[in-house]
Amino acid sequence: MTTDMLLEGVHFNLEYVPLKHLGYKAAVVNFSDIYAMNGTPTQITVSLGISKRFSVEDIEALYAGIRLACERYNVDLVGGDTCASMTGLTISITCLGTAAAKDIVYRNGAKLNDLICVSGNLGTAYMGLQLLERERLANAEQPDFAGKEYLLERQLKPEARRDILESLRKAGVKPTAMMDISDGLSSELMHICSQSKVGCCIYEDKLPIDYEAAALAEEMNLNIVTCALNGGEDYELLFTCSLDDYEKLIPVDDLYIIGHITKPEYGCNLIGRNGEELPLKAQGWNAFD
Amino acid sequence: MTTDMLLEGVHFNLEYVPLKHLGYKAAVVNFSDIYAMNGTPTQITVSLGISKRFSVEDIEALYAGIRLACERYNVDLVGGDTCASMTGLTISITCLGTAAAKDIVYRNGAKLNDLICVSGNLGTAYMGLQLLERERLANAEQPDFAGKEYLLERQLKPEARRDILESLRKAGVKPTAMMDISDGLSSELMHICSQSKVGCCIYEDKLPIDYEAAALAEEMNLNIVTCALNGGEDYELLFTCSLDDYEKLIPVDDLYIIGHITKPEYGCNLIGRNGEELPLKAQGWNAFD
Repeated sequence: MTTDMLLEGVHFNLEYVPLKHLGYKAAVVNFSDIYAMNGTPTQITVSLGISKRFSVEDIEALYAGIRLACERYNVDLVGGDTCASMTGLTISITCLGTAAAKDIVYRNGAKLNDLICVSGNLGTAYMGLQLLERERLANAEQPDFAGKEYLLERQLKPEARRDILESLRKAGVKPTAMMDISDGLSSELMHICSQSKVGCCIYEDKLPIDYEAAALAEEMNLNIVTCALNGGEDYELLFTCSLDDYEKLIPVDDLYIIGHITKPEYGCNLIGRNGEELPLKAQGWNAFD
Repeated sequence: MTTDMLLEGVHFNLEYVPLKHLGYKAAVVNFSDIYAMNGTPTQITVSLGISKRFSVEDIEALYAGIRLACERYNVDLVGGDTCASMTGLTISITCLGTAAAKDIVYRNGAKLNDLICVSGNLGTAYMGLQLLERERLANAEQPDFAGKEYLLERQLKPEARRDILESLRKAGVKPTAMMDISDGLSSELMHICSQSKVGCCIYEDKLPIDYEAAALAEEMNLNIVTCALNGGEDYELLFTCSLDDYEKLIPVDDLYIIGHITKPEYGCNLIGRNGEELPLKAQGWNAFD
């Protein structure tokens, strides 16, 4: 069971977030939380607080997004509560999921020498947000998104990585600890380490980074590694698994081994491209959390 | 599974609602929804949107109320989401419950000639709200609540009627349809009738009305029957059951038979004290819904 509350002006800005996308994302981030325990999302309830400035069509667009997500992920929308709001839009979604007890993966199971893996790429949704903010502030008649559609998609319409879980099942790998990356890699990895009472070591040159995201970071004078470590909302999977599973992981698509689990006294560290050791910091930020 | 969203300025007024009571009520109204299907609430998640004007102590008071309700009703608080709000306090609670499939009572099972029953008394929480509003508007240094504590309690700290369900089980009565009265008797009874495709007839002189509530209504020039029919937030149980169960119902404490189910073409009617027939109207209002 997982729940998320989204408040206008805090978690989303309707100036550039279409309501259908907002609905889709609000549902998918809950599904992602269930997948991150190796479960299957089954039902959601949706509660909305709606102010006068929203039309029926607006709310239909929001629900169209929620329903689309439910269809794609095979989840039933089973109820909710709709009420007036004196201020902005309020969305609260609760999701139920199922899993066989033996399949559930928690955050506290990482063991010494386990491999640390992530799916997809990191910092991309954050760069999408930077792009949206830049174009909003530029206030141009036509925002310039050419060639950067993938970044927008990652920010506005993220997907939950159930495909990765299926691949892992097929490969016969069960993670020892897992989370979805909603607040940034550093912060989630530090959660796993503190709950598992271990340390970790990850490598800068192993972090999967999208080319478009790197190019935009360069253009905006941002450090893409910092974005990959701390940018939130990627909803990729972060997990640890036994070193014995190394061979089984290799053929899995879109999956990257970025480091390994260490003794707790080592702490949580990033090894830079020049071999320097930097402690990880949990300074991630996710508007959607 | 049931969910409720409560927004400051819409569902509650912190000028006269203590945060501990608010937390208690927010949890209990969800439990009441589960009991109203003859289930047992088991877990809740609590999501809060909190603005800067709340202190840590405020939020602790709110949670103290939620936890107290959980203890009393034997429900586990299993998670939630806490986030910043740009405006007022936002509370979203989702509750899970269990019931054996054969025990679940829906809204669509009322049959011709079934008895219509309610627990407790009606319109009392609404009169409590009128009293709070009157004293707030009077703006006196010390509000005058003497002798009216019961009304306040019904408004500020309602209870879910699991005791009635236990009594019914002991008496061997299974309702054919059931709801809790959150929006007012008329509105809920019309829900049961429309979903069960039946009509109903209830009697003015059978409606259970509290003496203090009646006295205050008189004082404030309100019609207590209208309050009993349409005042919300009593969280009493409304159910129908077979006429064959009549003998079994008699010994059950705090339970009142107020009418019976009719053919659908008869509609939903109230028989007044002088025998006149008045159609019920769904004009109930519940700030908490």
